[in-house]
Amino acid sequence: MPAGRSTDVDCTVTGTARTPFGSTDEAPRQGAEGDTEGVIELDPAYAAGLDGFDPSADVLVVWYADRADRDVLRLDRNPDRGVFTSRSPARPTPVCLTRCSVVAVEPERLRVRGVDMVDGTPVLDLKPPLDPTG
Amino acid sequence: MPAGRSTDVDCTVTGTARTPFGSTDEAPRQGAEGDTEGVIELDPAYAAGLDGFDPSADVLVVWYADRADRDVLRLDRNPDRGVFTSRSPARPTPVCLTRCSVVAVEPERLRVRGVDMVDGTPVLDLKPPLDPTG
Repeated sequence: MPAGRSTDVDCTVTGTARTPFGSTDEAPRQGAEGDTEGVIELDPAYAAGLDGFDPSADVLVVWYADRADRDVLRLDRNPDRGVFTSRSPARPTPVCLTRCSVVAVEPERLRVRGVDMVDGTPVLDLKPPLDPTG
Repeated sequence: MPAGRSTDVDCTVTGTARTPFGSTDEAPRQGAEGDTEGVIELDPAYAAGLDGFDPSADVLVVWYADRADRDVLRLDRNPDRGVFTSRSPARPTPVCLTRCSVVAVEPERLRVRGVDMVDGTPVLDLKPPLDPTG
């Protein structure tokens, strides 16, 4: 742990990603590279957050890479570059973002395409992408 | 607190946003609406994460809305819609994303344009935007 990691905040896990990827080695490096289907299962306590969800929209899945090495500050593949120049999950706060297309909105779950996270990954949040066309 | 909020994960605060906005009422609803300048001050322990940062690139600032009401599941302005259809900071996990343009990369800080968060907001992470042109 680097010196100074004294301030943490807590994030609520609102759901779980179900994907075909059993390990980080199997998962693609970015969801946009594939069209693998997965399911975001909402904790029933937060399922009302899906009300009115537009099934034709894309969704930004905010997930927590709970297996990531959080002590990494420079990229393994290029130590001249810091982690803030990369989207690698290995970073002090391993909050990751994957833009997925929506296959179906179902009670307490969202079927999506374009997942890149490991099966069982904690999901913190779902948001509309900032740029609906980009 | 909704029943079932039992699982939290911790996120490291790697920096602080300095902006002209003293309260949420003063801050714009999305950074893209304005070109207000601000500074992301990195905790010295994490400043190496900025090494090699491209000053011509945009940056996605991942911040934590520490003043947000986390018990909200439906939108105040439209109770038929859940929070996952919105980017409002009021949500169970108040992790927010603002795409900013970079004004200058300085030691332990990033001067940016397009901030929409309140002065003093905890910053969790910085990432390249997924779509560099979007």
